[in-house]
Amino acid sequence: MKKHKLFTPGPTSIPEEVLLEMAKPIMHHRTEEFLKIAKEVFEGLKYLFQTKNDVFILASSGTGAMESSIVNLFSKSEKIIVINGGKFGERFVEIGKAYELNVVDIKVEWGKSLSKEELEKIIEENRDAKGVCVNLCETSTATHFDVKGYGEIISKYPDIVFIVDAISSLGAIPCYMDEWKIDCLLTGSQKAFMLPPGLSFISLSEKAWERVEKSNLPKYYFDLKKYKKSLEKFDFPFTIPVSLIVGLRKSIQIIKEYTLEKIWEEHKKRATATREGILAMGLSLLSSCPSDAVTGVILPEGINGDELIKFIRKTYGISIAGGQDKLKGKIVRISHLGWQDEFDVLTAITAVGVGLEKFGYKLNIEKGIEKAKEILFSH
Amino acid sequence: MKKHKLFTPGPTSIPEEVLLEMAKPIMHHRTEEFLKIAKEVFEGLKYLFQTKNDVFILASSGTGAMESSIVNLFSKSEKIIVINGGKFGERFVEIGKAYELNVVDIKVEWGKSLSKEELEKIIEENRDAKGVCVNLCETSTATHFDVKGYGEIISKYPDIVFIVDAISSLGAIPCYMDEWKIDCLLTGSQKAFMLPPGLSFISLSEKAWERVEKSNLPKYYFDLKKYKKSLEKFDFPFTIPVSLIVGLRKSIQIIKEYTLEKIWEEHKKRATATREGILAMGLSLLSSCPSDAVTGVILPEGINGDELIKFIRKTYGISIAGGQDKLKGKIVRISHLGWQDEFDVLTAITAVGVGLEKFGYKLNIEKGIEKAKEILFSH
Repeated sequence: MKKHKLFTPGPTSIPEEVLLEMAKPIMHHRTEEFLKIAKEVFEGLKYLFQTKNDVFILASSGTGAMESSIVNLFSKSEKIIVINGGKFGERFVEIGKAYELNVVDIKVEWGKSLSKEELEKIIEENRDAKGVCVNLCETSTATHFDVKGYGEIISKYPDIVFIVDAISSLGAIPCYMDEWKIDCLLTGSQKAFMLPPGLSFISLSEKAWERVEKSNLPKYYFDLKKYKKSLEKFDFPFTIPVSLIVGLRKSIQIIKEYTLEKIWEEHKKRATATREGILAMGLSLLSSCPSDAVTGVILPEGINGDELIKFIRKTYGISIAGGQDKLKGKIVRISHLGWQDEFDVLTAITAVGVGLEKFGYKLNIEKGIEKAKEILFSH
Repeated sequence: MKKHKLFTPGPTSIPEEVLLEMAKPIMHHRTEEFLKIAKEVFEGLKYLFQTKNDVFILASSGTGAMESSIVNLFSKSEKIIVINGGKFGERFVEIGKAYELNVVDIKVEWGKSLSKEELEKIIEENRDAKGVCVNLCETSTATHFDVKGYGEIISKYPDIVFIVDAISSLGAIPCYMDEWKIDCLLTGSQKAFMLPPGLSFISLSEKAWERVEKSNLPKYYFDLKKYKKSLEKFDFPFTIPVSLIVGLRKSIQIIKEYTLEKIWEEHKKRATATREGILAMGLSLLSSCPSDAVTGVILPEGINGDELIKFIRKTYGISIAGGQDKLKGKIVRISHLGWQDEFDVLTAITAVGVGLEKFGYKLNIEKGIEKAKEILFSH
């Protein structure tokens, strides 16, 4: 008997009560019954985003929300600064270039972060820039970026909007849209929201909406101005994924009951225990500024990460993620996102340890478990 | 006790076995297990599209697939002809204009169709056009367009590609992508595929792929060239909605078991019975060229369609659709899509009849039921 557990940074495990909610007979999206649910969800999203602004739901993956941020906030050939520390920073660069923007590609070494002082210097060198894009957690390198600090800097520039991709981290680690002066915050459904993939979410500040009014980049499906007008008449500009919204209502209820603060604290504890456990085993971490959403583990020389992951999945039913692009085969990533508890940390690090042992690498699994246990159950 | 039944042209009812399939624990999208499912689904989609071409799955509503067809097949300021007989023809016009194409907007009276000879004349007047867009079923007016005939004409022009939106009809009525010389066929999940909304599908002919190579319209999320490259490495360019795909596999299995031919025949019978029943009651039909996917019924003067629909839903649990834009309040639409049987026709027309009676309009419901019964159970 195998219990399949997901430690991938999306899709993540889904609570049974959410799965069953979505298995109920489907309803039409233009009914009072569904609109009542949608209103509850829209309110809940404001809590998750920690904002007074409206949050828009898109039927797309997180990448769609990233594209939406670019095509709605900018105009032809405008300059944007992208803090590019991995595959998802790179994605902002690619989207900007696809729309022929003037992209200042600030390459940050994978696994490293960028200080707010460094960002300030970059902005000063690019005073004609109209926006800064960053990932709160760069998922590919499991690295945290100082969104709070960047917001302090960027908000001093009235012509620059601040776009934050929090796809793999919103609801897992602190992120206050309004307080941190984020102009555009976006995320996806299949991470800390404990839902299947298929929805993304985006919210804009007043400063960002002023941009939307002026934006001349071509868009239709991702046009937020049109969406806003539809919502004013309590309608959606497209057929919204009804069952995912119904599931989202349940997820939001669960999150609200725990409170975000408690959920953030638990993610932090699980992430800390994972990192300390991994180090105690004798392995090392990828990131010098690790996120509490996901942990990147550097594999010993000679270990093929893809083979290791396959082995762990086939033998134990445990799914962890590998490296992407230049990190392919060289790391594994353990997600802490969403529906997990303390015991899941023991499961994940033990699976990695035992897997490595089977591949002939000697390490101290017991010490890792002991260290993690200490942190998880210390109070 | 009320049994909620959907007669809306999307979302449509979902078989219990599909709902339960999607309620199983979620899996990661980059596993052998999921790739096996995805392969089965990709093969099944070729059957649904009646094509040898690959079918691409997008995480979006049908509108996203419409946008994808435009941004992938055309280049800046090219001319396209749109056969615009309703809200969804209009949508092609809007998307074309959003991308600054030169749109020849062929307005067809709502509820009417266009002959292939008329189309030929239009093309001859626009020999510099690069594409023709049409809806197989214009959902807003429940009208059928002669895609087969248009294909015969358009295929004579090597520089013109033929784009068909079959969102509300693929899987319900005959549509042979290859045989009918369609260059780009697209649809959505929440109609005849018996799934929740959240997926759309698009397939391109060889002639269309040649266009993709040359296309210079900006795109990222809907970029099919990039998608094709990813699939060659058995990967998706974005996180695919895993649970919907798992549900889709089940839907495809059901459809394959019945066979498309039998399903088309049944839709035709249900649609005919509905139309004849409605006429026998003393009501009239909206479309002079009705689709077998959905039936549009003109409401008697003085009846508020939106109120009627609300009443029927609240009182009997039956959801039918209203009119859109200029037809708002003036018609109701009864869908025949997907998971329905003969008895559902009796339910739908009786609900409309009884509802109208309650609103004070006299009509012969018994005669309508009798007529429908005759057609449904005649052999």
